[in-house]
Amino acid sequence: MNIERNIYLKMKTLQEARDILFHRFPATETLSGEILPVPDSVGRVLAEPVTAKLSSPNFHSAAMDGIAVKAENTFGANEANPFELKIGQAAFYVNTGHVMPEGTDAVIMIEHVREVDEDHVAIEAPAFPWQHVRKMGEDIVATELLFPRSHVITPYCVGALLSGGIFSVLVRRKPRIFVLPTGSELVDWRKAAIHPLKKGQVIETNSSMLGSLTEELGGLYERGEILHDDLEKIKAAVQSAAAGDYDIVLIIGGSSAGSEDYVRKAISDLGEVLVHGVTIMPGKPVIIGTVRGKPVFGMPGYQVSAIVAFEQFVRPLILNMLGKPDEGRPVVQVEPARRIPSKLGVEEFLRVKLGRVGDRIIATPLPRGAGCITTLTEADGVIRIPNHMEGLSDQHPVAAELLRPLPAIKNTIVIVGSHDNTLDLLADQVKTRCRTLRLSSSHVGSLGGLIAIKRGVCHLAGSHLLDTRDGSYNISYIQKHLAGMSVRLVNLVLRDQGIIVAKGNPKRIQGIEDLAGEQVVFINRQAGSGTRILLDYRLDQLGLDPKKIRGYENEEYTHMSVAVAVLSGRADAGLGICAAAKALDLDFIPVVTEQYDLVIPEEYFETENIQILLEIINSVEFKERVKALGGYHTEKTGKTIAIG
Amino acid sequence: MNIERNIYLKMKTLQEARDILFHRFPATETLSGEILPVPDSVGRVLAEPVTAKLSSPNFHSAAMDGIAVKAENTFGANEANPFELKIGQAAFYVNTGHVMPEGTDAVIMIEHVREVDEDHVAIEAPAFPWQHVRKMGEDIVATELLFPRSHVITPYCVGALLSGGIFSVLVRRKPRIFVLPTGSELVDWRKAAIHPLKKGQVIETNSSMLGSLTEELGGLYERGEILHDDLEKIKAAVQSAAAGDYDIVLIIGGSSAGSEDYVRKAISDLGEVLVHGVTIMPGKPVIIGTVRGKPVFGMPGYQVSAIVAFEQFVRPLILNMLGKPDEGRPVVQVEPARRIPSKLGVEEFLRVKLGRVGDRIIATPLPRGAGCITTLTEADGVIRIPNHMEGLSDQHPVAAELLRPLPAIKNTIVIVGSHDNTLDLLADQVKTRCRTLRLSSSHVGSLGGLIAIKRGVCHLAGSHLLDTRDGSYNISYIQKHLAGMSVRLVNLVLRDQGIIVAKGNPKRIQGIEDLAGEQVVFINRQAGSGTRILLDYRLDQLGLDPKKIRGYENEEYTHMSVAVAVLSGRADAGLGICAAAKALDLDFIPVVTEQYDLVIPEEYFETENIQILLEIINSVEFKERVKALGGYHTEKTGKTIAIG
Repeated sequence: MNIERNIYLKMKTLQEARDILFHRFPATETLSGEILPVPDSVGRVLAEPVTAKLSSPNFHSAAMDGIAVKAENTFGANEANPFELKIGQAAFYVNTGHVMPEGTDAVIMIEHVREVDEDHVAIEAPAFPWQHVRKMGEDIVATELLFPRSHVITPYCVGALLSGGIFSVLVRRKPRIFVLPTGSELVDWRKAAIHPLKKGQVIETNSSMLGSLTEELGGLYERGEILHDDLEKIKAAVQSAAAGDYDIVLIIGGSSAGSEDYVRKAISDLGEVLVHGVTIMPGKPVIIGTVRGKPVFGMPGYQVSAIVAFEQFVRPLILNMLGKPDEGRPVVQVEPARRIPSKLGVEEFLRVKLGRVGDRIIATPLPRGAGCITTLTEADGVIRIPNHMEGLSDQHPVAAELLRPLPAIKNTIVIVGSHDNTLDLLADQVKTRCRTLRLSSSHVGSLGGLIAIKRGVCHLAGSHLLDTRDGSYNISYIQKHLAGMSVRLVNLVLRDQGIIVAKGNPKRIQGIEDLAGEQVVFINRQAGSGTRILLDYRLDQLGLDPKKIRGYENEEYTHMSVAVAVLSGRADAGLGICAAAKALDLDFIPVVTEQYDLVIPEEYFETENIQILLEIINSVEFKERVKALGGYHTEKTGKTIAIG
Repeated sequence: MNIERNIYLKMKTLQEARDILFHRFPATETLSGEILPVPDSVGRVLAEPVTAKLSSPNFHSAAMDGIAVKAENTFGANEANPFELKIGQAAFYVNTGHVMPEGTDAVIMIEHVREVDEDHVAIEAPAFPWQHVRKMGEDIVATELLFPRSHVITPYCVGALLSGGIFSVLVRRKPRIFVLPTGSELVDWRKAAIHPLKKGQVIETNSSMLGSLTEELGGLYERGEILHDDLEKIKAAVQSAAAGDYDIVLIIGGSSAGSEDYVRKAISDLGEVLVHGVTIMPGKPVIIGTVRGKPVFGMPGYQVSAIVAFEQFVRPLILNMLGKPDEGRPVVQVEPARRIPSKLGVEEFLRVKLGRVGDRIIATPLPRGAGCITTLTEADGVIRIPNHMEGLSDQHPVAAELLRPLPAIKNTIVIVGSHDNTLDLLADQVKTRCRTLRLSSSHVGSLGGLIAIKRGVCHLAGSHLLDTRDGSYNISYIQKHLAGMSVRLVNLVLRDQGIIVAKGNPKRIQGIEDLAGEQVVFINRQAGSGTRILLDYRLDQLGLDPKKIRGYENEEYTHMSVAVAVLSGRADAGLGICAAAKALDLDFIPVVTEQYDLVIPEEYFETENIQILLEIINSVEFKERVKALGGYHTEKTGKTIAIG
């Protein structure tokens, strides 16, 4: 037994790990059933085939208002030779839905009936048998199969079941999942809502996320109390959950490496570890085991790792228990916006933003940190890079699993380039105007934006590139980098750039010249960003050697990241926009007011989406919201700066 | 006012009717918000943009187990010149997730640290600043926009919100829909579950279906008591619902023409009728009105009509109230299996079955009756035939809205041809073997099946065509109709065909010869069906003129429909299979045992799906279930009859 155990302890590929899991817990082992009234069964899965008990309609009924007759009594009637029929004997008044009177087999529409007297009507044309009659069993025949087993009940099915005389159904009961968060650093969100976090404390979020995912699949979940890294307590909780009413136990490790070891030990002490570690990223440290015949998982603590591990292992297990087919996510072919390297021997789940630009769907990779949940909430899709590949080329289309419906992705304005806080505001303002339109922005700096335009991977770019020779913005860069392309340049905002420092300006910085020296740690922006170009220009003007600035080599990609670096004490100063300083309640020393423009290729300028965007930018409401951020000026907002 | 009212009373096109509705109830009029704890908000819609209150991580934390150091203290360390660092002063043991100690900015992995003594460690390589450190705000920066307004909260969002220090959110409250079923023929299903239906009574199903659809969209519904066709009672109920807490009122008419008039009168007496009648099929008689400023609908009583009217008018209204984008259903291009005529001036919602055959997705139309709910439960998609078209050609691809996910449609075995009750059984048995595989069968008779094979619109056909010259089945027909094609012929079952008569055989029918004469009303099968060919052959043998058989001209498409015709008294006798008679507890006079085969083109024979199907057909379990139906013989089941 020990030998068998140990062979599982090497890292497994995703496929190997799934094979081990489903060998131990086969797809055929579905849960028992429970009986529910039909109207309460929507979304549930049939545990057995259902056959109709009643026909529908369950009598011949009139499909029109008129008179019911026996067709053969009307043969020969015509205009020259109208037939007179006695009411109550050869003709019966009926309305739509009425039972066909005994001995009748056709309805003549009331418009074609002439009333002779109270007791007689005349007709001038024959009826053919069964005309305007809904025949018994036209929709459903009693004893017929309505739905096979494993069918998922929809609102439409409710109508068919009730009409077929089925009032309750045997559906598979919901699997019960026990979720146990562990980690000494974790705090329940209910407590965090009342007491401010102490340093080192982390809000526990995985149980709510995995719980919601479980409910979406049709399962139930219960959360145990957060446990500290205490082996005996963890073992006791797992033992009692596995012995109890639960079908699956998820132990969520804190993000600390230590807690993972507790989980592993707990499972192997109580039962058996089947898999420890899978060559996927994120999600690598997942543990698959069994206690008292129940599947027990050690889930990684980083949010994205926990979700990937859940979706690859727990989700199919829940679907199997329900006997529900796993349709998977829709897949489309996309083109990576740039080369994306990846580690050989690891299957990576790369989160990407998607947008249709021209007739291609372009995938822009999001950051890859397993602890960054926003890489999933912002993602439109996931590209799986298989073990045997060292990454993706920008030349070749590749499959992406969709996290949002394709129409939403197609109706997305893709903006790539410099970061500015008003872009968030614009994204929200778009929603007030057109709910199906979406703005997706990626921050790669101003020059990165121009290159994206050149490569045709975005609809527009945000840019604030200063020409140090004449003080103009963007135009000379466009002439150089987008030579031969027709683009429009529209101003978004004028904004104050300056030095972001801690509240109270403890290092007494007055200007760029004060950034040099041992006393001040600086945080820089990446090469190619407009802010970096501005800094280098000013340093050059002042004759200041960048080497004299401590931290010049540390780069961040957005104004907000620079502000956070200052707020957290990682740096004393950074160059950025006023809005970022104000947002985090930091001090700000203005240096220059600069021009932030949108570069829009002519081919997209007249499209409906870009025109909506420009209308929003020109609106009073947008300008007012921009000014309220602080450090912005809107005199030029929405104005065309140049057409070239 | 009266004039304005009247202009609405002509039939409207779908677009006109929607314009009138959304002019009166604009998309911008969303409902007020309610505050919910974040974990309870999944599926709800944000009523305002949400910005983060906390950064995540909200402190610099170790991303590895090891020692935390100040990077610049390590510059210069190498193998020849290891640095010794004092624990607690220049180096601090940390685990993943721990707060970085004051003054440190890098982590050296424990694997690269040599313990010198209890108080000292040695390193042989420098650390660069921020290596193996998760920086504060790496995922979320406080004050940043997390989600714009109208964003729908997913399980992933729960993680981002909680991590960003957001514990409750303002979401739009759920719209409340009041559903009022009317119609004197209607019976509550709860009553029908206890007392057998009286003749003319119909189970009320629309309120449960429309209610479930409302809940799926994110609304709440309440059902009023079923009202008879009584104007004053209907008015009182609508008045009180419109005056109350409800946002939308749906009055569902019975299927009788009379009840529609009550609804129209009730709305115009209490408020205003905006639209009466829309040129859509099904759904034409829908009424759109307003009472006390609330939208009030008169919904048609036929099930499919009610659903189409709901989806075209009520669904977008609910989504608008929620501020939720309407993504619509996914759309694919499909090819109609045959020409489909349609009425000019009416927009038809044609329900179709879909399946991938070769590289085309083939659409087979379902019956068009507005009262047949199974045409929706069986449908995989809906083709909209616009007002200005007289139908669809089989040559031209056309758009279909999908009711099932595309992967499910692609994984469907399409069988077209003769009807047999064991096909239902096969469909259920497929589900026990492979939950993602589906069997979709259309009944067009044996010859229709061969034609479908020839036109490449199905994977296999069910056929029982008797060659009257030599008593063989199917082979000579295949040679004639599928000349030049390679197909396999595999037996499904042998089955008893005979005369289906009422219980007790009141007309004392002994054989085909007794079908002639005035006493017996016969129900026939359609031309081209194997059963019809069998009948005509027997009549010919007996020298019996079909004209002598009463009802010979009335045709049904399936054995079950023939059996229902006998059960309901519409006919005294029909030719059909024993299983159909047995299912409805009718009597059966055997005439012949015939061979029902599957015709499978060679190109599909070796595909995985067909091989799975053949394994199921050959299984003992399937054969046992077939025999239990009665009138079947399985000696040849699964055997190859011919390869040609």
